Amino acid sequence: MKDDQALYLGIDIGGGSVRGVLINREGQLFAENKISTNREWTNSEFLEELIRLIETFQNHKFESIGIGTPGPLSINEGIIHHSANLVNLVQVPIVSTLQKKFPQKILLNNDANCAALGEYHFGKGKGSQSLLVLALGTGLGAGWVQNGNLFNGFNGNGFELGHVTVQMNGALCGCGQKGCVESYFSARGFLNRYKDHTGVMLDSAKIFFEKVELGEEIAEKIFSEGLEALAESIRAAVHLVNPDKIVLVGGLTQSYHLMEKPLQAHLKNKIFPELYNHFHLEVGGNIAGSFGAASLCF
Amino acid sequence: MKDDQALYLGIDIGGGSVRGVLINREGQLFAENKISTNREWTNSEFLEELIRLIETFQNHKFESIGIGTPGPLSINEGIIHHSANLVNLVQVPIVSTLQKKFPQKILLNNDANCAALGEYHFGKGKGSQSLLVLALGTGLGAGWVQNGNLFNGFNGNGFELGHVTVQMNGALCGCGQKGCVESYFSARGFLNRYKDHTGVMLDSAKIFFEKVELGEEIAEKIFSEGLEALAESIRAAVHLVNPDKIVLVGGLTQSYHLMEKPLQAHLKNKIFPELYNHFHLEVGGNIAGSFGAASLCF
Repeated sequence: MKDDQALYLGIDIGGGSVRGVLINREGQLFAENKISTNREWTNSEFLEELIRLIETFQNHKFESIGIGTPGPLSINEGIIHHSANLVNLVQVPIVSTLQKKFPQKILLNNDANCAALGEYHFGKGKGSQSLLVLALGTGLGAGWVQNGNLFNGFNGNGFELGHVTVQMNGALCGCGQKGCVESYFSARGFLNRYKDHTGVMLDSAKIFFEKVELGEEIAEKIFSEGLEALAESIRAAVHLVNPDKIVLVGGLTQSYHLMEKPLQAHLKNKIFPELYNHFHLEVGGNIAGSFGAASLCF
Repeated sequence: MKDDQALYLGIDIGGGSVRGVLINREGQLFAENKISTNREWTNSEFLEELIRLIETFQNHKFESIGIGTPGPLSINEGIIHHSANLVNLVQVPIVSTLQKKFPQKILLNNDANCAALGEYHFGKGKGSQSLLVLALGTGLGAGWVQNGNLFNGFNGNGFELGHVTVQMNGALCGCGQKGCVESYFSARGFLNRYKDHTGVMLDSAKIFFEKVELGEEIAEKIFSEGLEALAESIRAAVHLVNPDKIVLVGGLTQSYHLMEKPLQAHLKNKIFPELYNHFHLEVGGNIAGSFGAASLCF
């Protein structure tokens, strides 16, 4: 059973840390390590730190390296164009640079896609034939795993669900367009909408959700509209690709107790019955991004 | 070259006629025949006429039979649930009934999916790796051909683009929901919006487009809003599945001269540049539905 013993290195480039894990196909952990990220890293500083992290795993034998990072990126060229977390990175040739140091095959993909693949291999998406994963965090990301294969689309741009329009000429999104679901349902979206209505920029989505729980009218209205927008974006995805499983992950799912009933009611009301009855929606998110990144190698 | 000589029967169940063609993989026509449809046909009348039509091809040897029809239908069970054109049809077990009469394999799919596959094999979609076809007619249908394979989704329900929401709580759609793109851009949608604004139900989309060409303000407004809705729905599809080719077919493309400039401007403005630059949009529609139906067999 050579395959069962093969190990894969997964690297997750997050806002706070860069984490590496060495796992097998069953998700057993053989080694792990991390470094703290420095928001000011230049391309070369970032790449040097990344090389040092990967070198700490070199006393193990592993087959390949999967790397997950926020985009925008080109998975074919192996380039991170830029990053909201690491503000000085510009057109980082991450794959070609690492490839000079390490003989293993290196795969790059965006973090929402890695989350989707992680849920498929190790989490709530196991066994799904058509798995849609929504990453509800600062923005709204998504990934689609079709018959066990991550749908990359063109150069890793597949399933940019956050930038599907739910309201023509609606709220301004970070992408510069109006009416994207991300402008209604994401940490950034909630905070921007709250500022639109009150002039006040809250410090965090946590504070926004506290206001919702306390019943502050304007926060409740923004949240309620956001949930309907989220349901419309799920409707779009379901009517197009007909998933059998939808898994919600990301920081905002900590407030899922506020979402569950109205979201389910919207979905039942809005989606064609034969497709609504075909999927189950669950909250996932216990699968580390680094595990998802490692599963790019499978 | 046995494969090149193999023949396939394609049947297109349209509102005015049921057409059959016998073609090879290259789209060469070997025989054709049609019968006029009777709007009042019962299940058994419809099936008897269909059997008679197929029997006229029995002096030829053919491999399999592809059937395209408006939905809703279940392609796995081979059932037409009902039909807007043939109003007395109810749960027609079309595949099992024909299978008792004919030994050839029989494949059923909806007309927009057949149009997409037809454009892929014989039309403007040749060579595309990710082909999106929009059927702009009474309603708004769509089909997606990924690496040469028609995306059926669950039981043939894949790519119901007409029922993607572009405006939360917007115009009432024939499906009972609000804000679907079909309620803004389709013959039915234009006529319903015109009635909403004026109280007058026009007789046809042709008359509506004449009013647009004559510069009638309300018709122009409805058309302009429809084009923006269409662009938003194409944005959704492009941001999710990243096609390299988009082909528009269906009766409304006869008025494409009115659409081209504003539609292209909306698409360029709304879609992420790397994805906008990745696709070409063309008008197709010279491929008969029966040819698309035959290509289900390939």
